[in-house]
Amino acid sequence: MSYIFGVDVGGTTVKLGLFNEQGDVLEKWEVVSKRETTKEVTEHQLLKDVAASVVAKCEERAIPSEEIIGLGIGIPGAVRDDGTVVDAVNLGWGIFNVKHELASYLPFENIVVSNDANIAALGEQWKGSGADYNTIVMVTLGTGIGGGIVLNGKIWNGTSGAGGEIGHTKVPGDRLCNCGCRGCLERYTAAAGIVQNASELLMQSEEESVLRSAPELNPKVIFDAAKEGDPIAKGAIEIFGDKMAFACANISNILNPEAIIIGGGISRAGQIILDTVEKYYRPRLMTALSGTVLKLAVLGNDAGIYGAARMVMGK
Amino acid sequence: MSYIFGVDVGGTTVKLGLFNEQGDVLEKWEVVSKRETTKEVTEHQLLKDVAASVVAKCEERAIPSEEIIGLGIGIPGAVRDDGTVVDAVNLGWGIFNVKHELASYLPFENIVVSNDANIAALGEQWKGSGADYNTIVMVTLGTGIGGGIVLNGKIWNGTSGAGGEIGHTKVPGDRLCNCGCRGCLERYTAAAGIVQNASELLMQSEEESVLRSAPELNPKVIFDAAKEGDPIAKGAIEIFGDKMAFACANISNILNPEAIIIGGGISRAGQIILDTVEKYYRPRLMTALSGTVLKLAVLGNDAGIYGAARMVMGK
Repeated sequence: MSYIFGVDVGGTTVKLGLFNEQGDVLEKWEVVSKRETTKEVTEHQLLKDVAASVVAKCEERAIPSEEIIGLGIGIPGAVRDDGTVVDAVNLGWGIFNVKHELASYLPFENIVVSNDANIAALGEQWKGSGADYNTIVMVTLGTGIGGGIVLNGKIWNGTSGAGGEIGHTKVPGDRLCNCGCRGCLERYTAAAGIVQNASELLMQSEEESVLRSAPELNPKVIFDAAKEGDPIAKGAIEIFGDKMAFACANISNILNPEAIIIGGGISRAGQIILDTVEKYYRPRLMTALSGTVLKLAVLGNDAGIYGAARMVMGK
Repeated sequence: MSYIFGVDVGGTTVKLGLFNEQGDVLEKWEVVSKRETTKEVTEHQLLKDVAASVVAKCEERAIPSEEIIGLGIGIPGAVRDDGTVVDAVNLGWGIFNVKHELASYLPFENIVVSNDANIAALGEQWKGSGADYNTIVMVTLGTGIGGGIVLNGKIWNGTSGAGGEIGHTKVPGDRLCNCGCRGCLERYTAAAGIVQNASELLMQSEEESVLRSAPELNPKVIFDAAKEGDPIAKGAIEIFGDKMAFACANISNILNPEAIIIGGGISRAGQIILDTVEKYYRPRLMTALSGTVLKLAVLGNDAGIYGAARMVMGK
């Protein structure tokens, strides 16, 4: 038997998966990332914790190191092809080579590092809703927007590790983004953006809406109200769909993928997402691109460990 | 000695180049495409003419077929990886396999087909202003807008041959494009779009402008007037720069290339193009993308034959 580890580093937890050489997941577990008081300690301690968990799993299952094909790991930040993390601001990490550091703690050397959105995209392309396609773009809707590009079954990291930054593609509008630019997609279609769509409509209109008496405005409340026909909620979702479609049309015109896959927590709203984006997407597509498919992701939080494992198999 | 042919099919002429195995161009010439009355004849006759010209050149130079590495050819239309032209509407071509048909007329089999904008991009990446980079996007400004993507030294055709359709990426605005969609980049930054920018400003304003007495409005007249400080012409070029920058920001956020190269007839206006696009491009870039370079193309009409030859060398 041969084994592969897939690791997905998140803000509060690290997911791990053990896979066999056929790509079946044998076991999934989590390591809670222990945040230390200084940034210096955090990233190195976290990688030590991950390595310790991998070593412990090998001992538990009596897996000798020569039966381990390798380990893939996804980090929430820009990662260069050589394994250097250059921009993991949400984790407060410095610039350093994750591949080399992790290898120093492990009894095997084949370690592949990429961005968390990229490994989720590769996971969906391999085992999820992109399994019929070789070339897909995944857009992950949550607190922010992640983007991952898979070309002919391989992750495209971009030349400085910042490829697939779909959340910062520009759409019509001038809302200010955390990145310092105006009109970024995520200001209209990630969580806070969807809430702002609704808030602005509530202020501009006198129309009755269940959102006026909602204890909290969040994407779930707004999508649920839209499904019930609430006019303000529907208006907020139309803005969401129009901006998403604008970005998806630009992805299509530039890359011409077979499919664009929409995932992340917000995509749990389901069919209404596809219906609303499709409505504004199709009229923006030239005939040569009409075969492009929009789909919802299906692997949920497991997409990352699948993609992380796949990176190693693809080597 | 070994030889390579590079062929660039245009609307009115076909350019050919003979290269040695080091990639030096030994000779350049043209075959005028003889249009027949029906579409059926045209594309097949044109390929026969190209093949005859290649065979004649081999005879003239006494090049035996075993010394020919191959032939690369670019077509103005969408081309699949297998050499099938699926959408060459400007030439009125049907759907057929250019690679197979050309091979049937030639004494060698290594033939690689791509889109004309893609081969121009590869030519610039190989021997032109992209020579310091492996990954570039080229935007060709002319009657329409062509786009070509080179990732790690290889053309990215897209999954249905429609990758790099930069001219049909969407920008803010609702001008109707020939493709049937609204807000396509080329409606603001290709020849007719630049003229429309100026015409609309002339109608909206009473301001003095040399453009009011110009015998004809075309991009050269408008760029020349802008360089002289004409306010209406400058306004038209600001619109051009803003829309180009919007598209370049989206290219950068999606693909994260090292450089974006601006070419085509309109780019002969020179530094004013870079200055105006840069002005609106930099504020739209997140920090991780700040290394992206904008450059003007340098190979002019020869870019295509260089890129066509390079495709064969890259095999």
